[in-house]
Amino acid sequence: MGRLLIAFHSRTGHVETMAREVEAGAIEAGAEVTCSPVSELAEAALMKHDGLVLGSPAYYGLPAAPVKSFLDASVGMHGRLEGKVGGAFASAGNIGGGNETTVLAMVHAMLVHGMIVQGTAQGDHYGPVAVGAPDSRALVQCRELGKRVATLIERLHG
Amino acid sequence: MGRLLIAFHSRTGHVETMAREVEAGAIEAGAEVTCSPVSELAEAALMKHDGLVLGSPAYYGLPAAPVKSFLDASVGMHGRLEGKVGGAFASAGNIGGGNETTVLAMVHAMLVHGMIVQGTAQGDHYGPVAVGAPDSRALVQCRELGKRVATLIERLHG
Amino acid sequence: MGRLLIAFHSRTGHVETMAREVEAGAIEAGAEVTCSPVSELAEAALMKHDGLVLGSPAYYGLPAAPVKSFLDASVGMHGRLEGKVGGAFASAGNIGGGNETTVLAMVHAMLVHGMIVQGTAQGDHYGPVAVGAPDSRALVQCRELGKRVATLIERLHG
Amino acid sequence: MGRLLIAFHSRTGHVETMAREVEAGAIEAGAEVTCSPVSELAEAALMKHDGLVLGSPAYYGLPAAPVKSFLDASVGMHGRLEGKVGGAFASAGNIGGGNETTVLAMVHAMLVHGMIVQGTAQGDHYGPVAVGAPDSRALVQCRELGKRVATLIERLHG
Repeated sequence: MGRLLIAFHSRTGHVETMAREVEAGAIEAGAEVTCSPVSELAEAALMKHDGLVLGSPAYYGLPAAPVKSFLDASVGMHGRLEGKVGGAFASAGNIGGGNETTVLAMVHAMLVHGMIVQGTAQGDHYGPVAVGAPDSRALVQCRELGKRVATLIERLHG
Repeated sequence: MGRLLIAFHSRTGHVETMAREVEAGAIEAGAEVTCSPVSELAEAALMKHDGLVLGSPAYYGLPAAPVKSFLDASVGMHGRLEGKVGGAFASAGNIGGGNETTVLAMVHAMLVHGMIVQGTAQGDHYGPVAVGAPDSRALVQCRELGKRVATLIERLHG
Repeated sequence: MGRLLIAFHSRTGHVETMAREVEAGAIEAGAEVTCSPVSELAEAALMKHDGLVLGSPAYYGLPAAPVKSFLDASVGMHGRLEGKVGGAFASAGNIGGGNETTVLAMVHAMLVHGMIVQGTAQGDHYGPVAVGAPDSRALVQCRELGKRVATLIERLHG
Repeated sequence: MGRLLIAFHSRTGHVETMAREVEAGAIEAGAEVTCSPVSELAEAALMKHDGLVLGSPAYYGLPAAPVKSFLDASVGMHGRLEGKVGGAFASAGNIGGGNETTVLAMVHAMLVHGMIVQGTAQGDHYGPVAVGAPDSRALVQCRELGKRVATLIERLHG
């Protein structure tokens, strides 16, 4: 049974709603999931899981500072996350409001860790995005991300 | 009077519709505008204008190959576009479908040319994006881009 | 035995030198490899392989137009590359000359196809880069990429 | 006389060395410069200047968390930085180590603020980058950035 960590920052609750849907998708696909605000997590949590999904609002086209702090602190286990599975999602206030750059910033950070990331040919290619409150379209994308990551963890670490 | 070149690739007509709205905004702000499919332009056109706005559909998160061919060919005047004003817009089939990465790919190419690019604090920060056929929201963004670029050309080259 | 396609564009030979080293690494790790200029490949080649590594010079911070044309044409098999393994490398004339944006542009295109990409915690995180002619450092990165991709193909498709 | 703010985060001193060279170039071009660690700046400093240059180490392909915190806090003056001039530089431990993505992350944040950014056709196109301790090549790039930003401030706000 693959173990997935979902770590998010949410001020308005939109990102948390998305995180819960990613969680539901991952559980549905058989994963054991920890879903938590990033500020409540110790870095050591990364070592106890086979995969990581990060979620953040788009603040100036990038993940919020608490997410970045979490990533910076992860340098303590640099090299030890190689081969773990990653994914990311974001929420912005506007359609061209920095969602894609925010998702990709988190994906790039995971590549720096040597992690493994999968896109999707349908829907939100780099990772789910919501404009304002997540609508049913965005939530479907989140659920699919959860399933996709859990399935890949199972194949690689099951 | 600033001279703006709008060069676009459009298969379905969505990008051309956006281009025409950028053109209208630029004319409204006092620019002299050439608006043309990229495939009908010779590279020399770049030297006859003070600014360039590129428009493209998002194909695999990047500008379409004809736009890239135009950029590659512009190497013949590398260094001579320094200080010209740039801008970009894109259209994708889906909300997380690669619009931002496509706009930014064109913006980055302009930075490689030493061009000057302005974002916007409201709306589509990096450049206008449409999901499918451009709606009124996207068209307003396009018109604003035209005005913004024309105004900056006027300030820098007027 | 995993089958890897390495498709590249090379004008000066630098990118081809890198491609051959990726190939050597992949063969060393047990893969069956096709290594070819992108212009000599039919899109159908993508379906005959379990993974794809793309290599390109950095032209205006992006892959060369022939690479982009290959990607655009791959739309004919959109959705059918889901789960294949991807990787990318690039060569630029200068240290801040667009190598990372070029590699990531290809990585993003692979994510749009639903492909699976792995970074590395050591060295060139997103994919190997050379400044001018590839030195031994860059070639080591290329060989490691070949091994990494071949190993991931074996785990996922072996 | 244009007023430029250079805000940086530096742990090893490499980024500060770069910042001082950007400062020297800007002063040489006639600007009045404030050059300070980002952690010692109040957001209000942004309103007292016509331009902003940000410098950071590349941590996981992105600016360090203190730089991100500064950007997040700048939301308090969102919209009021429109038309100010921006620039960015970075330092990484490795040649493909995330320098370009770090510089562009800061450039993108500036575009979200509606700021004006110029690349360069020669050298480090998006902004100066150093690999380890900045060598003379990187320092020349920094000095040129200082001049370029100061000159653009003078043209737009002088």
